[in-house]
Amino acid sequence: MGDLIGSAVDGTLYWIGASELRRLCELEGAAPARAQLLADACRLNALYMIARAGSGHIGSSFSSLDIVTWLHLEELNRHGTGDVYFSSKGHDAPGLYALMIALGQLPFDRIHRLRQLDGLPGHPDVGTPGMVTNTGSLGMGISKAKGMVLANRLTGTPGRVYVMTGDGELQEGQIWESLVSAANLGLHELTAIVDHNKLQSDTFVEKTSSLGDLEAKFRSFGWHVERANGHDFEELGAALWRCQKVGTRPQVIIADTIKGKGVSFMEHTSLDSDVAQYRFHSGAPTSALYRRAVEELVSRHHAQTDALGIPRIQLEQAQAPQPAASGPQQKLVPAYAKALEREMERTANLVVLDADLVVDTGQMPARERRPERFVECGIAEMDMVSMAGAMALQGMLPVCHSFACFLSTRANEQIYNNATERTHVVYAASLAGLLPGGPGHSHQSVRDISAVGAVAGLVAISPSTEAEVARALAWCLHEHRGPAWLRLESVPCEVPFESPDIPLELGVGSVLRKGVDALFIGYGPTLLSEAWRAAELLVEDGLQVGVVNLPWLNHVSSAWLLKAVAAVKHVFSLDNHHAVGGQGDRIADVFASSAARSPRLHRFAVDGLPACGNARDVLRRHGLDAWSLRQRVVQACSLSVDLAG
Amino acid sequence: MGDLIGSAVDGTLYWIGASELRRLCELEGAAPARAQLLADACRLNALYMIARAGSGHIGSSFSSLDIVTWLHLEELNRHGTGDVYFSSKGHDAPGLYALMIALGQLPFDRIHRLRQLDGLPGHPDVGTPGMVTNTGSLGMGISKAKGMVLANRLTGTPGRVYVMTGDGELQEGQIWESLVSAANLGLHELTAIVDHNKLQSDTFVEKTSSLGDLEAKFRSFGWHVERANGHDFEELGAALWRCQKVGTRPQVIIADTIKGKGVSFMEHTSLDSDVAQYRFHSGAPTSALYRRAVEELVSRHHAQTDALGIPRIQLEQAQAPQPAASGPQQKLVPAYAKALEREMERTANLVVLDADLVVDTGQMPARERRPERFVECGIAEMDMVSMAGAMALQGMLPVCHSFACFLSTRANEQIYNNATERTHVVYAASLAGLLPGGPGHSHQSVRDISAVGAVAGLVAISPSTEAEVARALAWCLHEHRGPAWLRLESVPCEVPFESPDIPLELGVGSVLRKGVDALFIGYGPTLLSEAWRAAELLVEDGLQVGVVNLPWLNHVSSAWLLKAVAAVKHVFSLDNHHAVGGQGDRIADVFASSAARSPRLHRFAVDGLPACGNARDVLRRHGLDAWSLRQRVVQACSLSVDLAG
Repeated sequence: MGDLIGSAVDGTLYWIGASELRRLCELEGAAPARAQLLADACRLNALYMIARAGSGHIGSSFSSLDIVTWLHLEELNRHGTGDVYFSSKGHDAPGLYALMIALGQLPFDRIHRLRQLDGLPGHPDVGTPGMVTNTGSLGMGISKAKGMVLANRLTGTPGRVYVMTGDGELQEGQIWESLVSAANLGLHELTAIVDHNKLQSDTFVEKTSSLGDLEAKFRSFGWHVERANGHDFEELGAALWRCQKVGTRPQVIIADTIKGKGVSFMEHTSLDSDVAQYRFHSGAPTSALYRRAVEELVSRHHAQTDALGIPRIQLEQAQAPQPAASGPQQKLVPAYAKALEREMERTANLVVLDADLVVDTGQMPARERRPERFVECGIAEMDMVSMAGAMALQGMLPVCHSFACFLSTRANEQIYNNATERTHVVYAASLAGLLPGGPGHSHQSVRDISAVGAVAGLVAISPSTEAEVARALAWCLHEHRGPAWLRLESVPCEVPFESPDIPLELGVGSVLRKGVDALFIGYGPTLLSEAWRAAELLVEDGLQVGVVNLPWLNHVSSAWLLKAVAAVKHVFSLDNHHAVGGQGDRIADVFASSAARSPRLHRFAVDGLPACGNARDVLRRHGLDAWSLRQRVVQACSLSVDLAG
Repeated sequence: MGDLIGSAVDGTLYWIGASELRRLCELEGAAPARAQLLADACRLNALYMIARAGSGHIGSSFSSLDIVTWLHLEELNRHGTGDVYFSSKGHDAPGLYALMIALGQLPFDRIHRLRQLDGLPGHPDVGTPGMVTNTGSLGMGISKAKGMVLANRLTGTPGRVYVMTGDGELQEGQIWESLVSAANLGLHELTAIVDHNKLQSDTFVEKTSSLGDLEAKFRSFGWHVERANGHDFEELGAALWRCQKVGTRPQVIIADTIKGKGVSFMEHTSLDSDVAQYRFHSGAPTSALYRRAVEELVSRHHAQTDALGIPRIQLEQAQAPQPAASGPQQKLVPAYAKALEREMERTANLVVLDADLVVDTGQMPARERRPERFVECGIAEMDMVSMAGAMALQGMLPVCHSFACFLSTRANEQIYNNATERTHVVYAASLAGLLPGGPGHSHQSVRDISAVGAVAGLVAISPSTEAEVARALAWCLHEHRGPAWLRLESVPCEVPFESPDIPLELGVGSVLRKGVDALFIGYGPTLLSEAWRAAELLVEDGLQVGVVNLPWLNHVSSAWLLKAVAAVKHVFSLDNHHAVGGQGDRIADVFASSAARSPRLHRFAVDGLPACGNARDVLRRHGLDAWSLRQRVVQACSLSVDLAG
């Protein structure tokens, strides 16, 4: 869920090497002691991976690691082959990766490549050895586990399926939808384990959207229910053993765990119960906290090995890579947060709805200022959007918040249904576009314009600077009277241009830079900045290429566009999105429908699944960084010259 | 959910007029007797509306009518103003309309205009007086009711919110998602009533996807639970009274009802428990059964009034309008059913998944032939699609079935997630396009291409004849190796052309009719047939207009297209879909990106929300019938001549 964009830790970073890990895996003696030593070693390595990547989920990697370690060391394939384990929430991936590396199931050198191109993606992908399914979109895991069990039955394949869910994740309706037939079909090969660490992205589950009596809920759906301390290997082992004996029903183990388990100041139990925000859900720690955590993990590990009379673990270390220097960055989400706070004051019927992403989507100030008009819905996007629709029918002006990837897809039918009521609802969809590339394709939203673009009456808009964010929000609230999709790129960006302070007019763009040979037309800070830099480079190639900011994603004014491009031969449309359904489709529509001859359109967009990695690598992979854009423009223009010649 | 396309009843049709209805509403004496007489009168009128429309939902109109009548006569606004009632399932609309007409809340003459243009839509729309929200997409009702309560609280508006759900509808995850915060926020102003009529679209809830202990489920979510006989007014009244006294929690009344209540042979209790199909969920009855039902309703009504010593009800009557004569029709869904059955035999890993629409989506023969490879998921599209994805990972070849409107939107994120696994899953999406227009915009799928078109690797295809259906299914199963969207128009269609029996090639269309002046390019039986007829008419205007069948919706071969249009000046792209995201976008993309001069593109597509009504009226309203197409082509060509001149 939440996926904060942070900085990598600097200074010395520490990890445990392959041979030391092997030694732990092969320790003779009591299983719980072995599991404990290995799990803590994996905590250290997971922390290394996150510190180096600059983002990732510590809290739930740590809360789930004891369970995952025990499963892999002691349970999977114990009575034969074919057992599988996967995590439905998926953001505990660093912990799982660390374990699979320790077990030799993943090449060791991947430890240095979390969230890097061709490395280990932020959320699981089947392209990584050992990952049985793609997760990261919450709520799908039990459905998937059922599909696996049914396929096993059809093909006569043996094996049990273990799926881990979060507790916040249980707010997703698909979870409850999926329980019904699991019970009716008697899928006893399926064990779900709830990593009940009591916190979700923002804060306590209890505060966000309490799940009440979880055991009663699962029982009422016909499941066998166990409860265990998820950090007590003997209790856990016993619960898993009992599950295997049920034989008629699917089972769930509600495992009580501690978010951030293993590092005292990261453990949620060290927080006051009214803390507004847990700091270790996603994102890397500060360098100081990283070092404190390493010291704590290592000294506990040493104490354990000392007590067992075996050699202490040896650490490896290296200097963190130097981050590239950067100038001042524009941050659209904080700008949005300020704008939303101001709008809450001037717009009495404005209601803010959240789906467990208060910090990531910029609602903190609005919530603090006007708590009576803030509705926390939990991880329940469908419910949020339908509630918002009903509020709009009653005269409120609701603004729904989530990441673009989830809002456009999980609540797709609900957004349409609201639109059929011709009401006014604003969807503030952040984390839009290819970047950040770290979380991977479950979070990289490059099809949201397509997914909502044909909703009747909906206008989609993407501001490209902090200044334009406020104007775009005001337009959505005060100028427009229907559904609006406010698409926010969350990644900080060095923006080399200024957006002129002119009123927004539907379908009309503004010229950021003039060009006589060709024009880039695009939206959002990321690609407009790359285009600007490409245009500067292209001067060396003898080409004067302009840049046009067209914030409107599914409406383009024909009259404006045809006039804007009248003097150029080539237009390069830039979509931080797939070509299908992107803004370029609207530009193509205007050109193809025009009676007069239009310039030739070249579509630059995200091709194929979005790559996971850092910004520079991901843009380069998709041919969308300034350097690639320059090459592509030169090629297009020179090919065209050849053809003309 | 299910919405079968039937024929209107012929012969004499009967209804009860406005003054007689008013007499019943104003009857002095015992409330239950009055409610009974009015509810039965409304049954007769609802039946009239459905018989005349040729489609509509008898079963749940009848099961819910006693509850709805009691609520409106005795409960709403009893303690003040501001109470609202709506149905979440929405397909019980004919019953609700009949009641609102009886209460004078809707103009009486609407009784003759169910599912007609500017009449009463098949599912509720806020454009109709008294309809408080748009429903018909299942599972949203409780979320909406919560939004209303929260808005009431914010604005200080008094009133309770009553929402009716189906029982099959409870299979939708959004229902359970929505229960959580209703309890946490103590929304005691909210009463949900489950019309527990034991049957869903296809057959018994128990057989489809049993809901187990419903009371325990709701209780485990923190709701106050009542149970009552939904046809016993005193029991119902007492349960409603207790709900109003709860004061701290939302309440649910599980109302045991009988599907088809009021007409002996329509009542589900008259069925064997192993019947494959309940016949009165959707669609009009036969003329003979219509008359038997009328006789039964009227004679019971007479017996009741006789017993009370009041005058018998007087009926009004008229001859049913004569349906337009039609020639042989092509029916894509039965053709699909046959093709799927054959594919089940030749493809050992093919698995068929259904979401409670076996008949509507053509799975009956496959289910009968290969029950071991048929998975009934209930009304749980998200769960179905994620299960299918996991099965594909295990080497199965799953085909998921639902209506295009639900599959593309409710399971949108799940379809994407599957695609990120690069697996092979087929989505058979029927009821696609503008027609049938009767069910209304919740069911008219004119944005599905947009909603799924940008899913990486997904190919969307729309066959236009029965023969092409089999070829398209075979292509999806045997030629393609990724996700495929098989878009089926369910409405029967007189198809004036034949599709040449040539192998399908991705992105390549076929010429149905040659033309030197212009070309129609489109897909699917409905619009290609209209285009064909328009082309015949256009000969009289001196224009030779060709027709091209391009079944590929999100992939077009540039080389093929540019060659196909080389000789013409105008191309008219036809989308049985909104322009945004439709096939025309892909054509525009090719034209705009071409180095050579392309013909001018004119987009004919569905503008605005799809109109509800019969086929002829709906096509005309959207300018997509042959007559309108002819006018639009003439205008486009002559305008262009003027400009050139």
